Amino acid sequence: FSTASGETVRATLFPGDGIGPEIAESVKQVFNVAGVPIEWEEHYVGTEVDPRTESFLTWESLESVRRNKVGLKGPMATPIGKGHRSLNLTLRKELGLYANVRPCNSLPGYKTRYDDVNLVTIRENTEGEYSGLEHQVVRGVVESLKIITRQASLRVAEYAFHYAKTNGRERVSAIHKANIMRKTDGLFLKCCREVAEKYPEIQYEEVIIDNCCMTLVKNPGLFDVLVMPNLYGDIISDLCAGLIGGLGLTPSCNIGEGGICLAEAVHGSAPDIAGKNLANPTALLLSAVMMLRHLQFNNQADRIHNAILETISEGKFRTTDLGGNASTSDFTKAVCDHI
Amino acid sequence: FSTASGETVRATLFPGDGIGPEIAESVKQVFNVAGVPIEWEEHYVGTEVDPRTESFLTWESLESVRRNKVGLKGPMATPIGKGHRSLNLTLRKELGLYANVRPCNSLPGYKTRYDDVNLVTIRENTEGEYSGLEHQVVRGVVESLKIITRQASLRVAEYAFHYAKTNGRERVSAIHKANIMRKTDGLFLKCCREVAEKYPEIQYEEVIIDNCCMTLVKNPGLFDVLVMPNLYGDIISDLCAGLIGGLGLTPSCNIGEGGICLAEAVHGSAPDIAGKNLANPTALLLSAVMMLRHLQFNNQADRIHNAILETISEGKFRTTDLGGNASTSDFTKAVCDHI
Ligand SMILES: CC(C)[C@H](C(=O)O)[C@@H](O)C(=O)O
Ligand SMILES: CC(C)[C@H](C(=O)O)[C@@H](O)C(=O)O
Repeated sequence: FSTASGETVRATLFPGDGIGPEIAESVKQVFNVAGVPIEWEEHYVGTEVDPRTESFLTWESLESVRRNKVGLKGPMATPIGKGHRSLNLTLRKELGLYANVRPCNSLPGYKTRYDDVNLVTIRENTEGEYSGLEHQVVRGVVESLKIITRQASLRVAEYAFHYAKTNGRERVSAIHKANIMRKTDGLFLKCCREVAEKYPEIQYEEVIIDNCCMTLVKNPGLFDVLVMPNLYGDIISDLCAGLIGGLGLTPSCNIGEGGICLAEAVHGSAPDIAGKNLANPTALLLSAVMMLRHLQFNNQADRIHNAILETISEGKFRTTDLGGNASTSDFTKAVCDHI
Repeated sequence: FSTASGETVRATLFPGDGIGPEIAESVKQVFNVAGVPIEWEEHYVGTEVDPRTESFLTWESLESVRRNKVGLKGPMATPIGKGHRSLNLTLRKELGLYANVRPCNSLPGYKTRYDDVNLVTIRENTEGEYSGLEHQVVRGVVESLKIITRQASLRVAEYAFHYAKTNGRERVSAIHKANIMRKTDGLFLKCCREVAEKYPEIQYEEVIIDNCCMTLVKNPGLFDVLVMPNLYGDIISDLCAGLIGGLGLTPSCNIGEGGICLAEAVHGSAPDIAGKNLANPTALLLSAVMMLRHLQFNNQADRIHNAILETISEGKFRTTDLGGNASTSDFTKAVCDHI
């Protein structure tokens, strides 16, 4: 396989744990059939803590993403215990994954209570409530620090407006609680406003998080692109995934320093059904499509995307999580047939 | 009017701003018709900052609640400017309102995308992300402190389990993000577990906030009583209100030190429609019903509650926010007629 110019692109693949390998296999098959000129560099979660990453992720696997600048990641279960970092947080930190992007669209053919969802959440992914800074002040009194910096806020705001502009979106909503956290969320908003000035063609609004969540469940069609600090993004992106059917159907991609794009299925590793050919590969497939668009393989991205949507709306090959009894390979085959 | 024993109960009334006085008037009329033995002590938001409260709330108004131990509050708009505290935060702080309780039930007759909501959110109301402790570390780097104490966590957990037990509820779910905020949310969970031990008849579970929000929009029927730190409560209680139609339909009540119960409509003061006889008094009426139950005026509470539900489900007297064209007084009269 090769690009128009005949080149093959190398991309890192983390199949991940649990159902990860099965759904990664599904992506490989679909990419093959669609003729995507990608050569995968596969990396697995290690069995020992790598001192350079302080986690079960090896340094080599991170080097692979840094070199290729593009990758795809299945679910990773952080093993319980002490003395190591969460795998997801290690990836975010080591690769400087500053923005988590989740397009959230109602899937034609998969009915939920909502049929009008068409929005994108953009989450600051490196700081805020995820600083890891916590301590006991006196017995029975603990505190956590939420850190907001001008640099990270400008960077994610810039990404959100750039995304809106280049993806034909009309409005960016900054989500906050600056009526209470005047300084931290206040700084975040200040940065968003600064960036908004540079994009007069994109509308800009600010929405308080409690009101945002209420509006999302009443009328999600009112939102377009949402940008927000880390924890709000964690909460709202999952809420939005719920509107269209859950994490099994929602793609995601992380934008990192130096132009890295690490696409990722954000659902769990579902150990209960792992290895049983029952997992739904949709979220990982749609994430892989985001990766293809990032590489400007738009033709293959469109074909694969349409094939996934058609397979779901046909309804013949539903995996068990969507109420059907198709296997992972049935579903994958159906997508391949549609390509 | 008088109680069975012939006594009248004194309660504080804060009509509040904007539409507040109109909807408070509605409550007064309905209470009259239902023969509720309450004598109101009305207090208004002041026009100058009271140095003892550092806000536009007068010390006398707070003294009134402390003395009566029971009150009802309409919406209050915190005037913009410097040198004074938010009215809502002043009330919480000065009256030690440690738990905000919001029953959230689908209203028969008012259709939303959900018809199976029957849950109660119980929000810690005094600390957490609302500590007000924030500062700039260096230029471009700000931090906010989230404070969790054993005392406040035990107190709200105790209230939640007690509420579950005395209201025929089966399960308490503690909502958290302890996988990230291990120490603060970890302490909150630890306190919930301690209290759960004392209530073996009530089921106890822990749910991560992002997952909780996703589940709420997919299947709110899975939840019963939810207890959580301040900000999560702020977010989730509004999300839940959205499921049943919004803050205009959702009652709320704050439990404070020394047995205070301050019922409250949590919607805004809607200055655009203030004074026009257009406001929907439902949230304040339902909040007033919570206050009556607290006083064990169960007979009147039931009659008023049923009258409100009947009026809404009849559909003849819908206020404009619910798509009808009834006035506040039309709606109020209909409720009175049903009593
Ligand atoms: C697993 C957890 C640490 C993670 C987070 O909180 O960021 C997850 O919820 C996510 O959204 O990727
Ligand atoms: C007005 C605001 C300060 C308040 C809060 O954040 O607590 C409101 O959202 C609420 O839920 O009562």
